[in-house]
Amino acid sequence: MPTTVEIIRRKRDGGEVSAADLSALVAGYTRGDIPDYQMAAFLMAAFWRGMTVAETRALTEAMLFSGAVVDFSHLPVAKVDKHSTGGVGDKTSLGVAPLVAAAGVAVPMISGRGLGHTGGTLDKLEAIPGFQTGLSLDTFRALVERLGVALIGQTPEIAPADKKLYALRDVTGTVESIPLITASIMSKKLAEGIDALVLDVKVGSGAFMKTQSDAQQLAASLTATGEAMGKRVVALLTDMNQPLGWAVGNALEVIEAQQFLRGEVTTGRFAELTFELAAHMLWLGGAAESVAAGHILARDVVASGQALAKWQTIIEAQGGDPRVAEDETRLPQAAHELVVRAPQSGTVTAMDTEAIGMAAVVLGAGRQTLASPIDPAVGFRMEVELGSPVAAGDALARIHYNDAGPVPEVERRLRAAVTIAVH
Amino acid sequence: MPTTVEIIRRKRDGGEVSAADLSALVAGYTRGDIPDYQMAAFLMAAFWRGMTVAETRALTEAMLFSGAVVDFSHLPVAKVDKHSTGGVGDKTSLGVAPLVAAAGVAVPMISGRGLGHTGGTLDKLEAIPGFQTGLSLDTFRALVERLGVALIGQTPEIAPADKKLYALRDVTGTVESIPLITASIMSKKLAEGIDALVLDVKVGSGAFMKTQSDAQQLAASLTATGEAMGKRVVALLTDMNQPLGWAVGNALEVIEAQQFLRGEVTTGRFAELTFELAAHMLWLGGAAESVAAGHILARDVVASGQALAKWQTIIEAQGGDPRVAEDETRLPQAAHELVVRAPQSGTVTAMDTEAIGMAAVVLGAGRQTLASPIDPAVGFRMEVELGSPVAAGDALARIHYNDAGPVPEVERRLRAAVTIAVH
Repeated sequence: MPTTVEIIRRKRDGGEVSAADLSALVAGYTRGDIPDYQMAAFLMAAFWRGMTVAETRALTEAMLFSGAVVDFSHLPVAKVDKHSTGGVGDKTSLGVAPLVAAAGVAVPMISGRGLGHTGGTLDKLEAIPGFQTGLSLDTFRALVERLGVALIGQTPEIAPADKKLYALRDVTGTVESIPLITASIMSKKLAEGIDALVLDVKVGSGAFMKTQSDAQQLAASLTATGEAMGKRVVALLTDMNQPLGWAVGNALEVIEAQQFLRGEVTTGRFAELTFELAAHMLWLGGAAESVAAGHILARDVVASGQALAKWQTIIEAQGGDPRVAEDETRLPQAAHELVVRAPQSGTVTAMDTEAIGMAAVVLGAGRQTLASPIDPAVGFRMEVELGSPVAAGDALARIHYNDAGPVPEVERRLRAAVTIAVH
Repeated sequence: MPTTVEIIRRKRDGGEVSAADLSALVAGYTRGDIPDYQMAAFLMAAFWRGMTVAETRALTEAMLFSGAVVDFSHLPVAKVDKHSTGGVGDKTSLGVAPLVAAAGVAVPMISGRGLGHTGGTLDKLEAIPGFQTGLSLDTFRALVERLGVALIGQTPEIAPADKKLYALRDVTGTVESIPLITASIMSKKLAEGIDALVLDVKVGSGAFMKTQSDAQQLAASLTATGEAMGKRVVALLTDMNQPLGWAVGNALEVIEAQQFLRGEVTTGRFAELTFELAAHMLWLGGAAESVAAGHILARDVVASGQALAKWQTIIEAQGGDPRVAEDETRLPQAAHELVVRAPQSGTVTAMDTEAIGMAAVVLGAGRQTLASPIDPAVGFRMEVELGSPVAAGDALARIHYNDAGPVPEVERRLRAAVTIAVH
């Protein structure tokens, strides 16, 4: 058995670390036998040298088995989840989870909170009065068995190695590594007891992966690792060069998701991506014979009201007020609105989507650290898309706010984030 | 002021870190405000990306000023030290210190202990009964003022940042980095209050730098950093493809050094390198107008008995028995001797000098960790050099030992370390 220093040196010198050594490293670190400083050196060496598919798989497996792995093999239906690498205005989970579950494919979804410029599913759900996401793993199992779906947050039993490693990566400059990101995502997703996974790998100005090439590499790493561990995995590369849909901010995003679930909005970037993700999930889950058939099924499930009904069932089962599904005045509402106007006429040719996400943080819709409080009511209604023609004075966005303090700064940031090219 | 994570990321991404940021990093780490894990990530990033001359200088300066810096500017003579990067059988410090001091150039020498395959000056000195190396910085100052020379070990006041960083590098696989080695060496040497420094950069099978190219890079980094900090620095690249002289082991090395100081041995690799180092020190210290003149002066100082007299003065001033200088039966002596014989006739074409050093550790002459005890009496008398012709059964080396336990293993290692090519 090599020492920890020998494992660090092996990775540092570009060698491949064996599965047994990676397993010992992760287990020792999780137990506290291997100190943070040795793991930090290993992570920076891995950041530098990268990891092979075999190493990434072994790291993922070691992190996965550091905690509980849910077993839904007794359920007669397929279990399929969706994971997004994070963006701005991405509320697709609120659409696909009830939709796919309504079509008979189970969706055991464990999500995260928003951090930095990206939003998080848990924060959106918690904008619904009473909705509980901090449920135990036992409750999660029971809900999936009974309803075919549950939407909860990370529990302490799931991949404790990832919690410890992620916290360390965050303070040691080792976050942006494809194999380390892969192991972090997949160790948590594979703990859900799923058969298949649809990955929504965002690319563009509001994504962690700014280029097509980086996003492709991450998608390849995620799918290779999932497949090596016996799961069916599909990755879609989707555009994050502008917010996904009109709503940015938690209660506003619930409203937009519900417009979709009620069948009121079936076109546009948000609805189309939600159908696309759902179609892949239905296909992987065996409810549709092809992705194309999945599309038809997904639209039927929405049009028939089954998706909305399942959404109401979820809200009620998780302690929320199901009446919000049809009465959005029951959601938190901001007291004030400020219209951000176009300074000149022209065409919207670019959006700095990360800057829009950071403006939402400044407003109080998102958080800089996991400890920051958020205001579920506040956010933006985007009034333009890429390619929209605008006249000087037209609305670019509406800021929904309660506290006027940050509004001038938010307005300045929003205006700077939208590029209008003069004709 | 950037955060620690921002500094790590800057180095990770190949950027140059400012002197102010390196200073804050080292000061924060030394105080304990910056945790080991962030420094470990920074060190691995620095190992990967390297450091510019400006960065190396700033790191050195930050480490130097983490502790006390001796000031000998009131002394009317030049202060010059010599530093070796570590080898096997290297007892040149015991030759140059009294020699150069006897010629009127002060030698304020703070040395280290042997570790791994390399020996250390302190261990050699402590083979002399009564010799104290653990003297305070005040005693060190007083000795240099009075005698122009002192030979002590690291004190807690000298470069505490280096102590903490070295311990961290040792357990995080970040030792073998030229800028980090440079800062470690130079921060300690520049704390001695010297005007100039001669560096003996070892290269070969018994050195840390195995290739000429690596040794040249280290030499260039050391000299550039010293010169950037206003010191005159000369680096000699010297051969460490075989032990330096016949003695390996602490008391045996004192004997060999004293043969030199008494003027009994003036040729051969050890004596010639000692004269060469002394000549450079005398030249840098202004006692000789050229290195060639330094050579002549050095030989005179030995031939006249002044070097030996200074050696006896040093021993006496540091608590040792000065009679050892002429009566080596007063040094610790091993009880037994085993002759390692050539298994075949031929020519000695290679020595694995690191393996010879490690055989000395197994015998008890050196240590694996700083906590291991050593036996000053034990060691090897090498009977062959590279190029020596040998007949089967000729002595290759003599093992001086007290404990017979490790001797078979030591003999096996020694024999394996010496390559005899058949004619």
